[in-house]
Amino acid sequence: MKYTEKFSEDVGSFFRSPVREIFKRVDLNAIYSFAGGYPSADTFPLEAIQQTIAEVIAKYGAKAFQYGATQGVPELRDAVAKRYGVPVERVQITSSSQQGIDVCTRVLVNPGDVILTSSPSYLGALQSFRSYRADIRGVAHNDNIEEFQAAYEQMIAQVSEDGKKIKFLYMIPDFQNPSGESLTLEERKMLVALAEKYDFLIVEDSPYRELRYEGEHIPTMYSLSPDHVIHLGSFSKIFAPGFRLGWAIAHPDILDKIYVCKQSLDLCPPILDQYVAAEFLSSGRLDENLKKSVALYKGKRDLLLSLLNEHMPQGVKWTHPEGGLFLFLTMPEGFEAVKFYDKSLDAGVAYVAGEFFHPDGNGKNTMRLNFSFMTEEKIRAGIKLLAEILQTEL
Amino acid sequence: MKYTEKFSEDVGSFFRSPVREIFKRVDLNAIYSFAGGYPSADTFPLEAIQQTIAEVIAKYGAKAFQYGATQGVPELRDAVAKRYGVPVERVQITSSSQQGIDVCTRVLVNPGDVILTSSPSYLGALQSFRSYRADIRGVAHNDNIEEFQAAYEQMIAQVSEDGKKIKFLYMIPDFQNPSGESLTLEERKMLVALAEKYDFLIVEDSPYRELRYEGEHIPTMYSLSPDHVIHLGSFSKIFAPGFRLGWAIAHPDILDKIYVCKQSLDLCPPILDQYVAAEFLSSGRLDENLKKSVALYKGKRDLLLSLLNEHMPQGVKWTHPEGGLFLFLTMPEGFEAVKFYDKSLDAGVAYVAGEFFHPDGNGKNTMRLNFSFMTEEKIRAGIKLLAEILQTEL
Repeated sequence: MKYTEKFSEDVGSFFRSPVREIFKRVDLNAIYSFAGGYPSADTFPLEAIQQTIAEVIAKYGAKAFQYGATQGVPELRDAVAKRYGVPVERVQITSSSQQGIDVCTRVLVNPGDVILTSSPSYLGALQSFRSYRADIRGVAHNDNIEEFQAAYEQMIAQVSEDGKKIKFLYMIPDFQNPSGESLTLEERKMLVALAEKYDFLIVEDSPYRELRYEGEHIPTMYSLSPDHVIHLGSFSKIFAPGFRLGWAIAHPDILDKIYVCKQSLDLCPPILDQYVAAEFLSSGRLDENLKKSVALYKGKRDLLLSLLNEHMPQGVKWTHPEGGLFLFLTMPEGFEAVKFYDKSLDAGVAYVAGEFFHPDGNGKNTMRLNFSFMTEEKIRAGIKLLAEILQTEL
Repeated sequence: MKYTEKFSEDVGSFFRSPVREIFKRVDLNAIYSFAGGYPSADTFPLEAIQQTIAEVIAKYGAKAFQYGATQGVPELRDAVAKRYGVPVERVQITSSSQQGIDVCTRVLVNPGDVILTSSPSYLGALQSFRSYRADIRGVAHNDNIEEFQAAYEQMIAQVSEDGKKIKFLYMIPDFQNPSGESLTLEERKMLVALAEKYDFLIVEDSPYRELRYEGEHIPTMYSLSPDHVIHLGSFSKIFAPGFRLGWAIAHPDILDKIYVCKQSLDLCPPILDQYVAAEFLSSGRLDENLKKSVALYKGKRDLLLSLLNEHMPQGVKWTHPEGGLFLFLTMPEGFEAVKFYDKSLDAGVAYVAGEFFHPDGNGKNTMRLNFSFMTEEKIRAGIKLLAEILQTEL
């Protein structure tokens, strides 16, 4: 049987993650891996989790193992609503924040519809957008707010000229994946005003928001325009990714469609996991643990920044993330991070080439470095090694 | 903002589950509920689960809370492969067997493509098929195998005449939801031969297969033609639905597409849950617990059958399921199970009207009764009550 003739047209738009392909080539634990977006295993509070699971089973009994509501268990929806100061009817629990991205796209986008994003942007989101055959238009960041706004206005005009419809703008305003950079309050206000003026939605993806190592918290885009923004959150970086839990905060009319879509996707998120997250959150254990994670990651970020300063060859630049898990490296024009893989993986260092994050094919001379996963010792040895092999190339 | 203008065309095809709508109207624990497909909470081995979780955390540590492979953790894939005697490269763990149905449809079906199913068939599958705008063609069961085959041949010819393509046949051969009936070996062979002859796939959905209360196990359709059948399994009825875990067994070329699709859906299934299921399975605890579940459900089925015999008004017929969770009731022609809801829910009895399971709009005089969820005491009182109010109607 020839399966190729059986598959849907959508299959052609499925995009194999290059990050996962790298993971297949090498054992991440055997090399220096700045690839991936894994949190540090040291941040998982094993004892407290086991204790919480026991408490949940004692408290909820069989209910923790039965089917549950498609919107999520009330206890977790309440805890999320309280933590972020939103009405509970605006909270949907998702089976991972990746699912949040996917259902938003499924509910909003027809093939050919335009999704605006920053360029670079999160690869997993681009994967999902492509799978729905969206027309992805990337806009590069610009520190000059007038020029930044003009770039968006120009893109919006272009889309209109093309006879197409912008369904939403996808943004990671806090410690973006991959760049590590954040939008200023002024930039958030500007983008929200554009959404209101040109009548499109914003999908605000905020998995790293609570991992801030310096500076002041900046209001979410959701808080600036609650009816124009779908806010996506995740327990993966503030608790543990293995639970595969996230949330969507949005107008009830949007959540209603997400609800019906989710019914046919997987009926409901995992139940025990939701009760554990709810208990962990409302007992204050999550915040306690988060403090430790922030301290740990701040140390790793500081270390990475000082190592880059010390070892990187001239001509290499990098971002200064105030939080999150990533930092973005820009090599001199002409360098090709994808081609450099063979040399780098042979030497024992993994990263993700920046061009995969660029919907417009730019960024060939960039790479994303993750600083959360490895120990400080491995970060130190890994950066020295990366700098050495880069030196031979530049 | 008018959200209606924002949604994708797909949204129009999203189908709100009438079961869930009933759940919204009434508190299932406060009435006699033969609706839903919940397993009995008495079958969840709370202590053994808690014990297994402790063992998993001791054995795997932080690994149980980190991201994992998109195909599922190797331990669970191995355990499933061993249990069902298939090569491990043919096993994909899914985040619920509902997800299995959904990804198969997404990977195979373009809008307008035909999916053949039995009529009646599982509502959650029909929901998913509709959401991809599939053309669903139902074929009623016929005890005469020649006539049964002829009905399928006729439908296949009709589809060809319509210039359409059959992507797959969706079947629940064991203790079907909603009818409770199974396909004989002869019927399975006949359908598999049709799939081979007319070159379409079969999606074999088998969540109830291991809940057999009498008779001999019948080979899976997958075992009859491993390259033409995608077999879907679920931990929901043999372990606990709260874990939201299932599996797909299929040719690696098909699994490869499901893998890439799943990457953008949710990256990977929940990790701790997978390790717990793997440990539960390979330690023999699952089989031990399953024996108890089968004994419990057999008792409930026997009770339900004898109660129906004793109390149901003349003219009401029902199926004799050899396993599973459901039994199907057929009232005299002219009865309308949907209209009967108001009376029934007011009296305190819930069921699911059979017409929702019929893609062809048939079955208005049928209803599905679940016998796994309620205690024997409630089943007894519930059937007496249902028989009484039916009596006034017939």
